[in-house]
Amino acid sequence: MATRIAVMGATGYTALELLKLLVRHPHAEIVALTTRQEGRPHVSEVHPELRGRLDLHLQTLDVNWLADNAEFVFSCLPHAASAECVKPLVDRGVKVVDFSADYRLQDVETYEKWYGVNHVDPDRLGNVAYGLPEIFRQQIVGAGLVANPGCYPTSAILPLVPLVKHGIIAAKDVIVDSKSGVTGAGRTPKLPFHYPECNESIKAYGVGTHRHAPEIAQFLTMRDLAAEVIFTPHLVPMNRGILSTCYATPIGENTAADAMQVLEQCYASEPFIRVIGQLPETRAVRNTNFVDLHVAQSGERLVVLSCLDNLIKGASGAAVQNFNLMCGYEETTALL
Amino acid sequence: MATRIAVMGATGYTALELLKLLVRHPHAEIVALTTRQEGRPHVSEVHPELRGRLDLHLQTLDVNWLADNAEFVFSCLPHAASAECVKPLVDRGVKVVDFSADYRLQDVETYEKWYGVNHVDPDRLGNVAYGLPEIFRQQIVGAGLVANPGCYPTSAILPLVPLVKHGIIAAKDVIVDSKSGVTGAGRTPKLPFHYPECNESIKAYGVGTHRHAPEIAQFLTMRDLAAEVIFTPHLVPMNRGILSTCYATPIGENTAADAMQVLEQCYASEPFIRVIGQLPETRAVRNTNFVDLHVAQSGERLVVLSCLDNLIKGASGAAVQNFNLMCGYEETTALL
Amino acid sequence: MATRIAVMGATGYTALELLKLLVRHPHAEIVALTTRQEGRPHVSEVHPELRGRLDLHLQTLDVNWLADNAEFVFSCLPHAASAECVKPLVDRGVKVVDFSADYRLQDVETYEKWYGVNHVDPDRLGNVAYGLPEIFRQQIVGAGLVANPGCYPTSAILPLVPLVKHGIIAAKDVIVDSKSGVTGAGRTPKLPFHYPECNESIKAYGVGTHRHAPEIAQFLTMRDLAAEVIFTPHLVPMNRGILSTCYATPIGENTAADAMQVLEQCYASEPFIRVIGQLPETRAVRNTNFVDLHVAQSGERLVVLSCLDNLIKGASGAAVQNFNLMCGYEETTALL
Amino acid sequence: MATRIAVMGATGYTALELLKLLVRHPHAEIVALTTRQEGRPHVSEVHPELRGRLDLHLQTLDVNWLADNAEFVFSCLPHAASAECVKPLVDRGVKVVDFSADYRLQDVETYEKWYGVNHVDPDRLGNVAYGLPEIFRQQIVGAGLVANPGCYPTSAILPLVPLVKHGIIAAKDVIVDSKSGVTGAGRTPKLPFHYPECNESIKAYGVGTHRHAPEIAQFLTMRDLAAEVIFTPHLVPMNRGILSTCYATPIGENTAADAMQVLEQCYASEPFIRVIGQLPETRAVRNTNFVDLHVAQSGERLVVLSCLDNLIKGASGAAVQNFNLMCGYEETTALL
Repeated sequence: MATRIAVMGATGYTALELLKLLVRHPHAEIVALTTRQEGRPHVSEVHPELRGRLDLHLQTLDVNWLADNAEFVFSCLPHAASAECVKPLVDRGVKVVDFSADYRLQDVETYEKWYGVNHVDPDRLGNVAYGLPEIFRQQIVGAGLVANPGCYPTSAILPLVPLVKHGIIAAKDVIVDSKSGVTGAGRTPKLPFHYPECNESIKAYGVGTHRHAPEIAQFLTMRDLAAEVIFTPHLVPMNRGILSTCYATPIGENTAADAMQVLEQCYASEPFIRVIGQLPETRAVRNTNFVDLHVAQSGERLVVLSCLDNLIKGASGAAVQNFNLMCGYEETTALL
Repeated sequence: MATRIAVMGATGYTALELLKLLVRHPHAEIVALTTRQEGRPHVSEVHPELRGRLDLHLQTLDVNWLADNAEFVFSCLPHAASAECVKPLVDRGVKVVDFSADYRLQDVETYEKWYGVNHVDPDRLGNVAYGLPEIFRQQIVGAGLVANPGCYPTSAILPLVPLVKHGIIAAKDVIVDSKSGVTGAGRTPKLPFHYPECNESIKAYGVGTHRHAPEIAQFLTMRDLAAEVIFTPHLVPMNRGILSTCYATPIGENTAADAMQVLEQCYASEPFIRVIGQLPETRAVRNTNFVDLHVAQSGERLVVLSCLDNLIKGASGAAVQNFNLMCGYEETTALL
Repeated sequence: MATRIAVMGATGYTALELLKLLVRHPHAEIVALTTRQEGRPHVSEVHPELRGRLDLHLQTLDVNWLADNAEFVFSCLPHAASAECVKPLVDRGVKVVDFSADYRLQDVETYEKWYGVNHVDPDRLGNVAYGLPEIFRQQIVGAGLVANPGCYPTSAILPLVPLVKHGIIAAKDVIVDSKSGVTGAGRTPKLPFHYPECNESIKAYGVGTHRHAPEIAQFLTMRDLAAEVIFTPHLVPMNRGILSTCYATPIGENTAADAMQVLEQCYASEPFIRVIGQLPETRAVRNTNFVDLHVAQSGERLVVLSCLDNLIKGASGAAVQNFNLMCGYEETTALL
Repeated sequence: MATRIAVMGATGYTALELLKLLVRHPHAEIVALTTRQEGRPHVSEVHPELRGRLDLHLQTLDVNWLADNAEFVFSCLPHAASAECVKPLVDRGVKVVDFSADYRLQDVETYEKWYGVNHVDPDRLGNVAYGLPEIFRQQIVGAGLVANPGCYPTSAILPLVPLVKHGIIAAKDVIVDSKSGVTGAGRTPKLPFHYPECNESIKAYGVGTHRHAPEIAQFLTMRDLAAEVIFTPHLVPMNRGILSTCYATPIGENTAADAMQVLEQCYASEPFIRVIGQLPETRAVRNTNFVDLHVAQSGERLVVLSCLDNLIKGASGAAVQNFNLMCGYEETTALL
């Protein structure tokens, strides 16, 4: 038994990682890859890594053709462009995991404010499962559309939500200082990502303005108390990996040990969450779907640390995990 | 006119950078380099970069010989070992810049608590100039002993002290999230700094326990109000550079623009401080004595960003700047 | 059905890669990992990457215990130490893949000259299968002991042997200029592999003296004509990957196109050899068991280029491929 | 006394390095920087490294204006475009160092064959000094136009020319296998130089077709015997540095020791050539104008190794060295 799969927007890094996972997946049959590029290049011309592993030519995006030929579509299109294709596909009963931000935020106004475009499918917002199985598994199982989480939000939400929920930390004055490898910036050549510009250098970007801030805040808001999240992403000279260093205020006498205990209990049976006894490093999660979590004390703050691979658990691994749940396959298939 | 100079502990990275600066300095005559290694190796065996630029053999450390033959000593020895040699040198009238932490803290108890050793020269503590000319130039000019600042403290103190002093930000709940290149860890081979272990990976270390925290806090404490500093250093896969992302609480209605204005005014005539209109990156200060500063707004916080080269302004460049002031040379000599 | 497996010398990079492959292998049951370290550390303390994927404590090496409890042993021990353990294991009927050089050379004198030790098991030399299935598959299938090839030799032998055999290039005056990532140097911290020493730098090493030279030459010697191989390895600032640029003299009118045709024909049905139409780069084979080959013309020479991942096809992937053949499993299991 | 200097094409990496050297030069007055970009950006917008060190706006290229206002022009323009501007400048008596290849080859036909354009100033070819002072100092002193050498050719010519000249090695069957950092590819963003594409990867490029091959061969051709040079450049994941590994055939009984002796004698009084007793690494010449040379034996070949910084001795350092000689300043000014 296999599911017929198409990938929209197959030339980037998340698509490449997705394909590397899917070619190993016993229930995945890749039937189409789309691109805006002309000329139907072979996938190995775009991704030399896939030569000998996948024999397919890319094709121009045609939503009707996809609806006729695929049971499941992964959309790696940019926001706005994605919803335009996802809407008709879902309307026609095709299951979709959307990598873009189009269905992540529950509130249309917030979306339109941060992304600066009108949403083409506003009625679905608020009813789409957010693709973090560790928190929203019930909604994902059997769903027709899943919004694949942002890479930074995954790194922040996974450790912080249980701590807020269990009253360990306050949801206000949370500072998320994140560091990411350069694949997070995509595959389009631009001066800031030209090798000698970002090699041997580190910088912050999007301070106070990054679109992942409201995505994180949305899930920390509980019990009618609005969360306040300060989010600062940084560009680190490495290919992949995210480390988030989160500074939270403990409620009452809660300690780092209390926080660790809550995380251990919440995630005891999760196959991809590792609550570890030392400071995490991205090396240990590289090329895997794992998230490593740790909490330490520093002065009056709890320092919550989180590591993941931005292309796997931060994108394509999460997508496959969601695919498995949506289609009724074992959740860890192709991911361990 | 030249000053006869010795360098104690000449095999590490800060000593190498120091020597690269001093061989260009028109008033520096390097007369001795010391090491614990046996056999009087030529400096070019230890530092191949210096072949053809410095012709000297390293020698065993002998404080009396140094006092007889050098007018000025840079100590690149580790803490505790450093004070043991610096004390007799200063007693005999030799001028010293101490790279170690031994004379940075003004309070003996704080020193002994954080460094876990008794101080051999406790009476001098509190009377030694801290080697940040931009803040303590008056004390440094003509001084006999200067404590060269820590690399992380320099990156935090330079932007934060004026902001606290001018009432822009509170001295409590200051979070300093710093990222450093690997030369900051020294030159002794250890597994965490073995190339494949730290390449392509990022991690935090010393969370809540790093010795630079009290050094930063010491200078933010003003008007009888104790500062509270949360300090988290990170190891970044690059050779050199520090970026500090500092989260501060504005007092009253103060904005990022107010903070920028204060920094611009305070540092208007400083040759090595650049208050810049965009987010700084370590690339722009690499191999220089410059510090790039910027303040941005993020939610209810001011985000104060600071970049420097940990081996230059964070160590050897600052030391030469101090040397220039202590000896009456033009402050920028060999540094521009 | 599963084979009970032990790994001797499990703390290095090749052992880590081996274990990452074996935990995915449907017919591998890992029963023991050995180390010289004291205290039976959990494998996740040594290799944090394996937390949650393998639950085993390392144990002291005891050959008799291994012979009683394992059907198959991978030896990641250094040369000389390896043969001492491999000999009694093979004598007792345990199947072994030896990562060390101990059984690679067919001639005892050559071994003792290049490795400077007496061989403890000289009678087996010359009768042990060399673990390159693409050339020696018949000897490997069902074998009791296989010598896993060196990483550099694999990159050179795979493209050069067919070209010599089919009369395209001469076996003399072959120059192999190889470039390797730093994991090839092992996991023991030493100054040349300290991050700031090898980052942002490239160098040659072992010029004219590297032990992989006779291993390459051994297989290029055919039809009574001794091969002459000049081999120069280089250390490149990256974790993994080998590129070998080989300069060969064409025989007669043979061109690069002729060479490409021979490689394509010889390797047409090989699952892990890709003869490609452009210049290879190590990126495309990273984390895979593939080898990418290409031949170009440059003046009067043929330039034969070869890329592989030194830890996979250059070590642990090849070992699993050999394991599959020795035990009768599908050759590509756990490798695609 | 200072020379009024303009830089044509000031936005790239070689221009940046040139400016970093010139702002330190006591006899350099930078009067103009040109660019094709619109809007007269400040140099610190293009090169943030130069903020506080150089206060100048870029301007549109106007050859007449330059001839009126500058005594010396460095051309960092691409080939063909460069000669078009250099010709009228030299005709009007302005001294020029041309970074492009336009005046490096002595033969018009060779130029037009390899560069695919007609030469606008063919009569000067063959009469322009090639900017390697260690070999052509006499022609450079006082010259009006100097062709700055290519980075790869410098690394190959400096060690090989004396060895051919003194009969140590043959000029035919010379193989130059070169490895370069990514700044060598320029500053224009393109996919192959996008950080995640070239980080952690190595590849050859331009095999058999790189334009530096005839530039090297031109200087190895002596005594009516045409040189044969096989040249293969590689892209290495680092910012700067070139290592050339050259394989040469010794004439008669000549050994590596003989070759070392010739190099030591030829370059005994050269300030920037270091003939060293161990294998060179690019780290030791980084950010300097030095070239490190060594010769080793490997089988029947001599392996000639050469390291330099492609942006300094391979481009801008050499240009300043030529500037010093052309203008009568001390040759090492601003370079040690």
